[in-house]
Amino acid sequence: MSRNCLARLGVALLLWTTVGMAKADEGMWLFTSPPEGILRERHSFAIPEGWLDHLRESAVRFPGGSGSFVSKDGLVLTNHHVGADVVDQLSTAEKNYLKDGFYARTRDEELKCPDLELNVLASIEDVTARVNGSVPAEADLAAAQRARQAEINTIEKESQESTGLKSQVVTLYHGAQYHLYRYRRHTDVRLVFAPEQQIAFFGGDPDNFEYPRYCLDVCFFRVYENDQPLQVQHFLDWREDGVNDGELVFLVGHPGRTNRLNTVAHLEYLRDVNTPEFIDMIRRLEVALSAWANRSPENARRAQDDLFGIQNERKRRIGMLETLQDPAFMKAKRESERDLRAKVAGDPSLAASAAAWDEVAEATKAWRGLKREYNLYERAEGFQSRMFTFARQLVRYAEETAKPNAERLREYSDSALPSLKEGLTADVPIYPDLEAVKLRSSLVSWLSRAGFEEPLVVDVLDDKSPVDRAAQLISGSKLHDAAYRKQLLDGGAEAIQASQDPLIQLARLVDGRARQARKAYEQQVEERLRQAYAKIAAARLATGGNNVYPDATFSLRLAFGVVKGYQEGTATIPAFTEFRGLYERSELHSGKPPFDLPQRWVDARDRLDLSVPFNHVATLDLIGGNSGSPVVDREGRFVGIAFDSNIYGLANDTGYTDVQNRCVNVDARGIIEALRSVYDAQPLLEELLK
Amino acid sequence: MSRNCLARLGVALLLWTTVGMAKADEGMWLFTSPPEGILRERHSFAIPEGWLDHLRESAVRFPGGSGSFVSKDGLVLTNHHVGADVVDQLSTAEKNYLKDGFYARTRDEELKCPDLELNVLASIEDVTARVNGSVPAEADLAAAQRARQAEINTIEKESQESTGLKSQVVTLYHGAQYHLYRYRRHTDVRLVFAPEQQIAFFGGDPDNFEYPRYCLDVCFFRVYENDQPLQVQHFLDWREDGVNDGELVFLVGHPGRTNRLNTVAHLEYLRDVNTPEFIDMIRRLEVALSAWANRSPENARRAQDDLFGIQNERKRRIGMLETLQDPAFMKAKRESERDLRAKVAGDPSLAASAAAWDEVAEATKAWRGLKREYNLYERAEGFQSRMFTFARQLVRYAEETAKPNAERLREYSDSALPSLKEGLTADVPIYPDLEAVKLRSSLVSWLSRAGFEEPLVVDVLDDKSPVDRAAQLISGSKLHDAAYRKQLLDGGAEAIQASQDPLIQLARLVDGRARQARKAYEQQVEERLRQAYAKIAAARLATGGNNVYPDATFSLRLAFGVVKGYQEGTATIPAFTEFRGLYERSELHSGKPPFDLPQRWVDARDRLDLSVPFNHVATLDLIGGNSGSPVVDREGRFVGIAFDSNIYGLANDTGYTDVQNRCVNVDARGIIEALRSVYDAQPLLEELLK
Repeated sequence: MSRNCLARLGVALLLWTTVGMAKADEGMWLFTSPPEGILRERHSFAIPEGWLDHLRESAVRFPGGSGSFVSKDGLVLTNHHVGADVVDQLSTAEKNYLKDGFYARTRDEELKCPDLELNVLASIEDVTARVNGSVPAEADLAAAQRARQAEINTIEKESQESTGLKSQVVTLYHGAQYHLYRYRRHTDVRLVFAPEQQIAFFGGDPDNFEYPRYCLDVCFFRVYENDQPLQVQHFLDWREDGVNDGELVFLVGHPGRTNRLNTVAHLEYLRDVNTPEFIDMIRRLEVALSAWANRSPENARRAQDDLFGIQNERKRRIGMLETLQDPAFMKAKRESERDLRAKVAGDPSLAASAAAWDEVAEATKAWRGLKREYNLYERAEGFQSRMFTFARQLVRYAEETAKPNAERLREYSDSALPSLKEGLTADVPIYPDLEAVKLRSSLVSWLSRAGFEEPLVVDVLDDKSPVDRAAQLISGSKLHDAAYRKQLLDGGAEAIQASQDPLIQLARLVDGRARQARKAYEQQVEERLRQAYAKIAAARLATGGNNVYPDATFSLRLAFGVVKGYQEGTATIPAFTEFRGLYERSELHSGKPPFDLPQRWVDARDRLDLSVPFNHVATLDLIGGNSGSPVVDREGRFVGIAFDSNIYGLANDTGYTDVQNRCVNVDARGIIEALRSVYDAQPLLEELLK
Repeated sequence: MSRNCLARLGVALLLWTTVGMAKADEGMWLFTSPPEGILRERHSFAIPEGWLDHLRESAVRFPGGSGSFVSKDGLVLTNHHVGADVVDQLSTAEKNYLKDGFYARTRDEELKCPDLELNVLASIEDVTARVNGSVPAEADLAAAQRARQAEINTIEKESQESTGLKSQVVTLYHGAQYHLYRYRRHTDVRLVFAPEQQIAFFGGDPDNFEYPRYCLDVCFFRVYENDQPLQVQHFLDWREDGVNDGELVFLVGHPGRTNRLNTVAHLEYLRDVNTPEFIDMIRRLEVALSAWANRSPENARRAQDDLFGIQNERKRRIGMLETLQDPAFMKAKRESERDLRAKVAGDPSLAASAAAWDEVAEATKAWRGLKREYNLYERAEGFQSRMFTFARQLVRYAEETAKPNAERLREYSDSALPSLKEGLTADVPIYPDLEAVKLRSSLVSWLSRAGFEEPLVVDVLDDKSPVDRAAQLISGSKLHDAAYRKQLLDGGAEAIQASQDPLIQLARLVDGRARQARKAYEQQVEERLRQAYAKIAAARLATGGNNVYPDATFSLRLAFGVVKGYQEGTATIPAFTEFRGLYERSELHSGKPPFDLPQRWVDARDRLDLSVPFNHVATLDLIGGNSGSPVVDREGRFVGIAFDSNIYGLANDTGYTDVQNRCVNVDARGIIEALRSVYDAQPLLEELLK
């Protein structure tokens, strides 16, 4: 992205106003328009030349999470819970690295991950004009959506062909801007170090989103290229003496999704329809998987990765819902919206924007009507299982790749295919018994929601109970086998058509409905929202105001804040915890799960300096996807790694205040002390601190 | 009940036919019409003179469960999980009898239960003619419901006044018959023995509804009268040498509720609407309470009684739903119904019954429209907490007792008041923190279901978030205090009106809506179902057929079957487990919860005879409420106590087959061996075996 373009954007954004903006250490800022003014005013900090580029190049995007380079030899640090599914894939019933941890003392011992792609952001380009220019002025929603999607597919393909970089168009401000992000893609990634999950996730679900905390939620990978460690120019220096209470820090990572710029109607829709239904769904999975996991230790091992994600999501969504249901919160949103609409109504030059809020409301109304079909079939909530997802991808791959790139579903556009194919054919362990539990539970729920009047029910059930049918679908399918998936992938449409695999047949059976639901959603909801939000953004710009950052989009952002404790009722929660507290908390629970300690930690107690900071909190604005984001100081040095928010941070989806909301980090000093005194990881320490 | 009346009933029932009747060891039979013919034919067993009366007098009804007298000195045996809430009430953070168990070696040490009423069935009288006679021929649903309820209240009151016995009119066959059950009421009940919950419920939720099992799910109480142990004429002899594989046995207890005689439309309603919604609700509570319980050992102690019931119910309801969703099951129900309707259509004399199936369908349609209001307000799903229940009862007590008996809600009729008042004023521990968790979760769910257009929302939330409001309602209320409840109860309408207690105010606020919903439900659904099912029962009678037993109604029933293992795939599951298997199962799970053993059991391993039968299964038809039911042999001797069904028994709500469905019992020999070798409970043993 050119400096010129950056400057234009910066100016534009400086004029915007939005709900509760810039009154706090708030925001997930674009690297193309950082909060320079706010940083100067609030923290007397001027962003140094090259500082942003260095952080951008040091940041690493994980699937669903964040990380950073921490050595010149391509060493990457992220959260254990971000890497856990890979650690899980590398484990067996005999060698359980999740339970026992893993450390490669030499490069030879590093374990190649079967299915892990890391992305490093190489450049950003504003393609708003091109994307919007592709939509004819008088196009209806369907035509507009088709034209826009075709243009995005084309931009991505051209970019990829001309640069060789993975190229993704990101929709910002719900549709006001489109930026092309180009990534270097790394697929040879090896596991270097993972502690026992028990210390990474000490306190388990009960302590998740709580503070004080005592978690070594870290793991290390190394990126390879041509079988050699990747040599990187940019990586984070480790600040060995750590960060101080009250110090300014920054968070560099990939927040996934927020809803802060939503209109009130849009928030009400999330409050009344989408979020409650999603929570019911996630609770269903939690109960089904917990009950199954508790039947045997091996079940527990197989289910734990799914369960972690589910329980985390459940807490997060309930927190979101409780915020949306707070009359005070909604009142503030409503007042802010009323003010902006009044300004628009009073200014004839903004007439084009006046109806935008009603258009958003229209879109949510359409959404309400379409969601059942969309969720059941396109999101496949009726057929939840990894193996069904494979089936769906194989069926669609054959169909989509036969079309011109511009006409394809976006996840099958040429620029997306390399990652997709690798994911499909990676030799990761799939547990059919676990798959059957998920499929059974979702089939039962599907039957309730689709209703027995639904003609598909007869075909899907094939005259069996959902229990028997789920068992039969899974036991009859070979999709747990990577070689079989590769065979179907390579065999193309013909192989799919001929396949007797019951899950392939199921995926084909429901695909018509799923595609129909998706098309309706993309045209009636998504495109309508894009157009309406673009108008609202224009109104914000014209009516003046402060800086505004776009809602999170799982693309690189910068947050800022200070290391700081908080008040909870009459109690003061200090910013830092120490190793001492870990042992105390375990003892309070008599060492019972999930407060038990790995034997290595029990043994190391006397060797550890118990006064070393273990975790800390800071007023950094974050959301899911930020997990594993490095926390750096003014000089860009590594001082911690974000792994959670406290309970108040559950409100971050729709708004942020720095009164109690806190980002929870593993302290850089705690990592060093653990590597030294618990894991005796001298080579790793030397690499980090040299 | 007179012999004449009994005989008439017997004849009538012998002519009925119904779905899948009497092809198996099936049925929950009335003591007034036992399956004499089936027992003779299938098992060459003729019921001896006095046998039924002896069993009836030995049987004890617990709140929600069953039990039996096992000594002349009023010793009562039930399941630990039936007595657990009482054991819990007697426990504190310091003296945790649930965790550590309890044994009173002498009568002096027996602990008086603060809130436990036991009932012994003294007599049964058919009052069908009187109840139906009270309904004028041309009455509409509303008038019919009012007249019927008034008559039932009057019958109960008259009976109670004339006999001094607790009197309840039971609705049989969904409305075809009304029987008056009279109970001796015992309220001085003391705890004698309870093992550690860990051995009573070994394997916890994961093993619940599974087999093989290893649970000492028993506890002993003693009934007192005038501060002396109650002397009973009838109690069960203990068969010391135990029962044999293949032997005929009987189950005597109080099955709670089944839906076996439901029409197809009624079953579809349960399948598509009621059961899925109920499961969502119960999962919500499970997740909220589990997450809170895991935060600390004391939380876990406080929540465990609620959690047990919730998890048990969740498994049960999901099993019901999976059965209802089985096309083969529904097909059989549909065919059976079609046959009966064809017979009715072909017989002009049955014209009065022809429309009954459509009337049931009408009732379920009405139900669908009324359920939201009914569940949210009358069932108070929006305000789940023990303290709200107290508030509701206090508010209604004041209002209802001011009316004539015949006009009252039935739980406030004179015959019900003694139990109600004791429950309200019993000094049981209430944990406000636990109450707040439940209330918060249900408030959040209520807001989603009621919607923010609902005017009540503003009043209930009082401008606070559901989180803050739940906390405020609970912390501001004194209803956890039995003395305060008694004060409000005694103070009558005036005290209620003046009360500033926020939960009393909330209960008053929503009571109008709740009453309205209840009235609509009772008239449009319940009364309509009663009338329609009475006609269907008449058609069954007229068209001939075999014996039929009414659906379960939490009144005394007799089931029969044999001790017998079963096939599961290719595996044969033997009827008996031994103590040996307990230790093996614990070792398989490395002794981790819920497969850990109490220290006493670890220590006793060498003393125990590991080959003694611990649990066994039998083809006895049962459902929730049967927990604690004695299992007896042909001579009426105690051979075991039912505590669960296996996973196939989850289908028992709507039908029963004896192929795989099994009742799971603690074997009489296992109880003796445990009392002897683990608990050294000599006095108790002597009392049981003398």
